[in-house]
Amino acid sequence: MKLLRYGQPGAEKPGLLDASGRVRDLSGVVPDIAGEALSPDSLSKLAKLDPESLPRVEGIPQQDLRLGACVGNIGKYVCIGLNYADHAEEAGMPIPEEPIIFNKWTSAVVGPNDDIQVPRGSVKTDWEIELGVVIGAPGTYIDEADAMNHVAGFCVINDVSERDFQLNRAGTWDKGKGCDTFGPTGPWLVTQDEITDINNLDMWLDVDGERMQTGSTATLVFKVPHLVSYCSQFMSLQPGDVISTGTPPGVGMGQKPPRYLHGGEIVTLGIAGLGEQKSLVRPAIT
Amino acid sequence: MKLLRYGQPGAEKPGLLDASGRVRDLSGVVPDIAGEALSPDSLSKLAKLDPESLPRVEGIPQQDLRLGACVGNIGKYVCIGLNYADHAEEAGMPIPEEPIIFNKWTSAVVGPNDDIQVPRGSVKTDWEIELGVVIGAPGTYIDEADAMNHVAGFCVINDVSERDFQLNRAGTWDKGKGCDTFGPTGPWLVTQDEITDINNLDMWLDVDGERMQTGSTATLVFKVPHLVSYCSQFMSLQPGDVISTGTPPGVGMGQKPPRYLHGGEIVTLGIAGLGEQKSLVRPAIT
Repeated sequence: MKLLRYGQPGAEKPGLLDASGRVRDLSGVVPDIAGEALSPDSLSKLAKLDPESLPRVEGIPQQDLRLGACVGNIGKYVCIGLNYADHAEEAGMPIPEEPIIFNKWTSAVVGPNDDIQVPRGSVKTDWEIELGVVIGAPGTYIDEADAMNHVAGFCVINDVSERDFQLNRAGTWDKGKGCDTFGPTGPWLVTQDEITDINNLDMWLDVDGERMQTGSTATLVFKVPHLVSYCSQFMSLQPGDVISTGTPPGVGMGQKPPRYLHGGEIVTLGIAGLGEQKSLVRPAIT
Repeated sequence: MKLLRYGQPGAEKPGLLDASGRVRDLSGVVPDIAGEALSPDSLSKLAKLDPESLPRVEGIPQQDLRLGACVGNIGKYVCIGLNYADHAEEAGMPIPEEPIIFNKWTSAVVGPNDDIQVPRGSVKTDWEIELGVVIGAPGTYIDEADAMNHVAGFCVINDVSERDFQLNRAGTWDKGKGCDTFGPTGPWLVTQDEITDINNLDMWLDVDGERMQTGSTATLVFKVPHLVSYCSQFMSLQPGDVISTGTPPGVGMGQKPPRYLHGGEIVTLGIAGLGEQKSLVRPAIT
């Protein structure tokens, strides 16, 4: 299944994508694509629905029908750093011996086609295509062998980052990762049954049509089951938590010379089987 | 006003403390001490209520009536590091030139008297009494002069920290700050009108009756209005967000020799005018 949330910001409704690429309304079945609706039991029930039996929603998703983030009410947005060997190299940092965990403030989450705002004072706003893992069943101290039973599905994430805030402003990376709009998430939450091999998904990111990032989940240093298990040693995981698994090479900081977003650019990105995002970059106006 | 949340974990109801130290039920007035109930308008309305007109709740708070965290549905738990000059010194770190921001995962939040769990693999679980600031009005790029208009009130926080996870496990501080139960918050959310001078509140923390931390908000490096304004440069703030402002000297890591929590200890702590916490420490059993 491809689950999604459609409608205006803050008023999104749950939906699923049917075989013809149109949205079917799930409001009569679950209150939101969030929390308990992501549990294994709930996903089993949703999988048994005949999409044709659900109300059809007007509009083409991502064209004249806005999508919100594919998960609502995200409790924790856990990010993994330097999890592709070749990205660690371009960042000039060693491959970590264990996963690096940092945080994206949940107020940064937006839809897959919403504008990305360059924050005031930014000089180094950068992009990062990432594979997102959405938690479906709660857990703490999860065994790696059991980890995938806690996963509802996967999605595309742009882990937008302000490098100067992240690296040069006294302290942890969190200042540069959670500015408003720094978390485009979606278009869809794709359930595990649709993905043949999570460790072999091509991923790419363009700025104004120019290819910047080319990668594959094949080169993840720490794989998804390990990440779920590892994170759960330091926190309990709840349905609707998101783990963003790191980015392959080609971020702006790694270009020669470095290249950043200042406003006016179009950023497009995608992962095979998980859909695509397209966002306009503009200066923050708030 | 002293606002609070009482009842079993996950099913807390909103209440306020009356002049006799008993709880009055606010369920008929606001759905929770959370989100919009913390707005200036909502707080004004609550302040006009006659507590005697509200249903009296059975039990003595913190004795036979459990309190939850004094804020529900916390969206962001923003922590400030090394914000007391003398604590920075004991930690062997320089006074920061600008506030250090890090994250406490919101799943770590518990009531002021709930057990603190020592996580599996912990060798250095430590305590930190802190002044918490609860956001009441949303904002981004908030001027320092306007910052207190965005504050609903204050509370006591124990920023429980695992030093080995925080400092030696590859990456940002976030691994050692957000383990389950690492965020006892409350007992009450005390509105601004009850505090004469937020920059002159005594604070203390005992382990098994032995004084460990003695401090005062008088020695905060960065004061509350600056912190609210500063944080809002890197994220939008929403009602129910919490900013924990840092700890004075006397943490376990700073003892000679260092001293940590292993289970069985009683930690008590308080801030003048904001109430007290008392927690039993025990190993994680999940």
